[in-house]
Amino acid sequence: AWALEFLRAKGVDVILTHEPGRTKVGEELRHVLLRTRDERLAPMTELFMMFASRTQLLDEVIHPALERGSWVLCDRFVDSSVAYQGGGRKLGADRVRALVQSMGDLYVEPDLTILLDIPPNVIATRMQGRQLDRFEREDASFFQRVRETYLREAAKSPRMEVVDATQTIDMVQTDIADLLERFAPKVEAMPRST
Amino acid sequence: AWALEFLRAKGVDVILTHEPGRTKVGEELRHVLLRTRDERLAPMTELFMMFASRTQLLDEVIHPALERGSWVLCDRFVDSSVAYQGGGRKLGADRVRALVQSMGDLYVEPDLTILLDIPPNVIATRMQGRQLDRFEREDASFFQRVRETYLREAAKSPRMEVVDATQTIDMVQTDIADLLERFAPKVEAMPRST
Repeated sequence: AWALEFLRAKGVDVILTHEPGRTKVGEELRHVLLRTRDERLAPMTELFMMFASRTQLLDEVIHPALERGSWVLCDRFVDSSVAYQGGGRKLGADRVRALVQSMGDLYVEPDLTILLDIPPNVIATRMQGRQLDRFEREDASFFQRVRETYLREAAKSPRMEVVDATQTIDMVQTDIADLLERFAPKVEAMPRST
Repeated sequence: AWALEFLRAKGVDVILTHEPGRTKVGEELRHVLLRTRDERLAPMTELFMMFASRTQLLDEVIHPALERGSWVLCDRFVDSSVAYQGGGRKLGADRVRALVQSMGDLYVEPDLTILLDIPPNVIATRMQGRQLDRFEREDASFFQRVRETYLREAAKSPRMEVVDATQTIDMVQTDIADLLERFAPKVEAMPRST
């Protein structure tokens, strides 16, 4: 959300989305997905639900925003499914990519993806005392697979940039600002939101 | 459900499933899918949700039943997605089949599929006075596409059999009994459920 404030301060017309959720259907799916439950949620069920939330977001929010010339800042997108369901749940990145394929014209490839990287043991310390959702209750090996998948994807993808999130918040924000300014040198000349 | 009684009367160990739903997660998805709502549900969102319900059903109910040697009678399965989302929502049968592919080992191909065929105008008469769900409120052209897709698939698939559901209930049941007996000539020699 800091990136949102940064871009808005520069006069960029930008909206923020999150996943799963943001739309009415998406929030209902989020509730089913994140709630801690007794019965096992099959990994493919989880993956299909993530894509259900994502397609609704694309249809209802992202495409209309892009059509009116707005920027769209997404808190999680396809890369998170590659990392969490592909890596963490061991479904494999190819299976996640096959679902992206099946979306056809509905899919929009991001121009820039910023990965805030932090080792699982540091996250665990930061989350102490918090109420944990179904993903957050997974064990260390799950998060190790998620992180490795993210970093492997980032190494292969020219649109993905990694920021060291173990730094102080100020340093993290400076890194993000640098990336956004490098990505859009004319960011200050963007159309104003009002 | 009549086929269930018929098979049980023959001593077959058989369970009945329905879609979307049957599992706890599936019923939550069913509620979101069938409820009449103000906002549009993107066709791909609907398709992904159907597959989410289906994979959970396969993982939680169908595979365990087959492993213990039971028959599984499914009230709707992949063919309904081909007809409703592929045909009715115009996503195309190939896109639905791509999602089946992505399920990998979780998918089980049915041995026999019975299609109860009835023209849309006859259904409309039968449904008069009922509270309609989100699908049932679609227009005649939607149901025409659904029916055409079902019949086209049935013509191509050796496992699909069409029963004329405009007949009297007794005649429909006789046709189903004939199909089940032809499918499993040793149905009377099947292992007894208790």
